[in-house]
Amino acid sequence: MHELALKLQPPYLLFIGDIDTQVYAKTALGIMQWCPERVAGQLRFPDNALDLGVPDMNIAQAIEAGIKSLVIGVAPVGGTVDSRWTETMIAAAKQGLDIISGLHLRLEEIPELANAAQETGAQLVNVRVPPKQLPIGNGVKRTGRRVLMVGTDCAVGKKYTALALTQSLRALNIDADFRATGQTGIMIAGSGIPIDSVVSDFVSGAAEIISPDNHPQHWDVIEGQGSLFNPSFAGVSLGLLHGSQPDALVVCHDATRKVIDSCPHIPVPDIRSCIDWHIQAAKQTNPLAACVGISVNTSGLPIAEREPYKQQLSKEVGLPCIDSVIDGCDLIAKQLLKQYPVGSQDHA
Amino acid sequence: MHELALKLQPPYLLFIGDIDTQVYAKTALGIMQWCPERVAGQLRFPDNALDLGVPDMNIAQAIEAGIKSLVIGVAPVGGTVDSRWTETMIAAAKQGLDIISGLHLRLEEIPELANAAQETGAQLVNVRVPPKQLPIGNGVKRTGRRVLMVGTDCAVGKKYTALALTQSLRALNIDADFRATGQTGIMIAGSGIPIDSVVSDFVSGAAEIISPDNHPQHWDVIEGQGSLFNPSFAGVSLGLLHGSQPDALVVCHDATRKVIDSCPHIPVPDIRSCIDWHIQAAKQTNPLAACVGISVNTSGLPIAEREPYKQQLSKEVGLPCIDSVIDGCDLIAKQLLKQYPVGSQDHA
Repeated sequence: MHELALKLQPPYLLFIGDIDTQVYAKTALGIMQWCPERVAGQLRFPDNALDLGVPDMNIAQAIEAGIKSLVIGVAPVGGTVDSRWTETMIAAAKQGLDIISGLHLRLEEIPELANAAQETGAQLVNVRVPPKQLPIGNGVKRTGRRVLMVGTDCAVGKKYTALALTQSLRALNIDADFRATGQTGIMIAGSGIPIDSVVSDFVSGAAEIISPDNHPQHWDVIEGQGSLFNPSFAGVSLGLLHGSQPDALVVCHDATRKVIDSCPHIPVPDIRSCIDWHIQAAKQTNPLAACVGISVNTSGLPIAEREPYKQQLSKEVGLPCIDSVIDGCDLIAKQLLKQYPVGSQDHA
Repeated sequence: MHELALKLQPPYLLFIGDIDTQVYAKTALGIMQWCPERVAGQLRFPDNALDLGVPDMNIAQAIEAGIKSLVIGVAPVGGTVDSRWTETMIAAAKQGLDIISGLHLRLEEIPELANAAQETGAQLVNVRVPPKQLPIGNGVKRTGRRVLMVGTDCAVGKKYTALALTQSLRALNIDADFRATGQTGIMIAGSGIPIDSVVSDFVSGAAEIISPDNHPQHWDVIEGQGSLFNPSFAGVSLGLLHGSQPDALVVCHDATRKVIDSCPHIPVPDIRSCIDWHIQAAKQTNPLAACVGISVNTSGLPIAEREPYKQQLSKEVGLPCIDSVIDGCDLIAKQLLKQYPVGSQDHA
C-alpha cells in the first residue's frame, strides 16, 4: 500500500483485558476470524474467561516471542479505558511495542504513554485518525482490477462481504487483497485509511491511495462506507466510489431494512435503483463499471423465507444473490471472473 | 444562522496592506462589491495606490469609529504574510478587534497574536477552519425555501450566481439570504461554514446548519461547492446537496470548459445530464426538487456568440439561461417564483 496509508506491524498481541463479552471484544474476534496469521498472542487480565484461542502473554513474554504491536481489541462503553489498561500500554511502549487503538481517546493524549513511545521509538497508531497530507483525487486510471462493496444503507455487511469475497477469490487462485476503509478493517488488513474521518476535499484522493497501481490480474477488494442513498453519509460514499474507480460493484443489503438507519423517514431504495445509480456514478472514473452480485443479510427473515428471497432477487437482477455469512462469496467471485476473465484487460 | 456556524462581527476594517493588484486583493474587492454595508474602512500601508473607496483608518481610528473586526482582504502568494502584517494584527487584537483571516497560516500560530487576543477577548477567526462538534446529518425537512447552486465543474461561477440571485430576489421583495460555504463567501455573508474543510462524515450535517429552519416564504440562496461530475470533489458536492435539501437548483456552467478542471481526461457533462443527475440526487432529501435556470460564464466566447449560445441552451432545457455577470439573475429569480409562487407551501 501507498506510503501515506496507515501501516500496522505484525505479529499482534491482542489486548482484551477484562472484556469478556463477544459484543465488546468484537474487534479482537474479527481479527482472529479474518487474519489469524497476524496474531501471536492474547493479553487478558486474570479471571477473564473469554479466550481467543492463542497463547496468553504478558509484555515480557511478548517481547520474547517477537511481537511487534499491542492491539487494543475491544470497544468499551464510552470509548475509553481505565488505568489498568493504560499501565499495560505504557509498559508495552517502554519495551518498544507499537500500540494500535481504535478508541475515541487518542493515544498521544496519555502523557506517560507519549513519553514512553518517544523514548523507544514505538509508534502510537490511532486507526480512527487518517494520515496527514493526503492528496486531492485526480481520477487517473490505475492498473489492476478493483471491486467495491456498496450498499442500500450503512451497516448492511459491506466489510464482511469484502473479506469473504477476498477469501473466495484467493481460493480460485486469484491474487486479491482486502483494502480497508474503516477502523476494524484496517486492523485486519494491517493497513488502510479511515475514510469517513478524512476532510471532505481529500476523500477521493485518500481512496486512490487505498487501492494503488497493481499488476493487471490483481484484484483489490475494497471495503465500502455508507451509501449513496443515506443522506447522512452519501458524500463519503461518492468520494470513495470515484477514488476507487471500481471495475466491479457488489451491492450489499439487509433483507428486512425498510428505512435508512440514520434517517427513518427515508425509505431504503430497491436493488435495481441502487445498482443503476451506483453504476452511473462509478462511470465518471471507470466507464466500464458493472455490478457482479448482491450480498444480502437475511438474518432477520424466517429461515424458510431466506432461500426464496435470494432466488427471487437473483432472478430480478440477473446476478448471483447470496448471504455472505451463510453462503460465503464463491458465487460472486465466479460471476466476477466471468465478467472479467483472467487475461482480459477490459470489460468482457 | 445556527450557533455552531462561524460568525463575523461588522463593521469591518478591510486590511490590504501593500497589496495593490486586483487579483491578490480580490477578497476585499468581493466584500466591497457584495456587502459594502458591512465595511467602515480600509487599512493600507503608505503608498498603496489600490483604493477600495472607503475611509483610510489606522487601528486607533478604527476603534474610534466603532470597528469590530480587522479582515485580511488579500490572498498573498504562498498564503502567508510578513511582519508588518502580523504587527498590525497584534495591535488590532490588543485593542480588542476580532481578526478574520482566510490565510493558510492559522492565526493562533502567531504566539504574540494569540496572547493579545486572549488578553482582550478578541476572537481569531480562520474562515478556512470549520467549527468543531458538527452533527451528523439527519435529512429531516426544515421549514423555509432553499435554492442551491450546482455546477458542471468547479469554478464555474456558483458563488457569484448565488450572490446575484440573492440581490434579484430581494429586488422582488422576497426575503432572501445568501448562505456561504466557502471562505470568501463567509466573509461576505458574515457567517457560514467552509464545507470542503469539514470531515467527510459531517458534511451533510454542516450543510443542515448552514440553512436552518426559517419562515415559509424565506429563501436561502446557498453557495455551491465542486460538482457531482468532478471526481476530485463530488463527495463534498453530494453531502452539501443532501444537507441543503434544496427546493430549487441553478446549474452553473462555463461555456468554453470542455474537460473537468482537476481531471483533464474527463469531459464536462452536457447540461441535460447535469440537471437530471442533480435532481435525482436531490430527491433523496427533497422529493420536489427542480431546476429553475442555467447560469453560464460566457466570457470565453466571442461576443457575437454569447446571446445565441444562451438562447440555444434555454430552448434546449426550457428554462432561463443567463450570464450572471452580464445579465444579473432577474430571469432566474422570476422563474423561481413562477415554480414556487409566494404563498405556496409545496412545489407548484
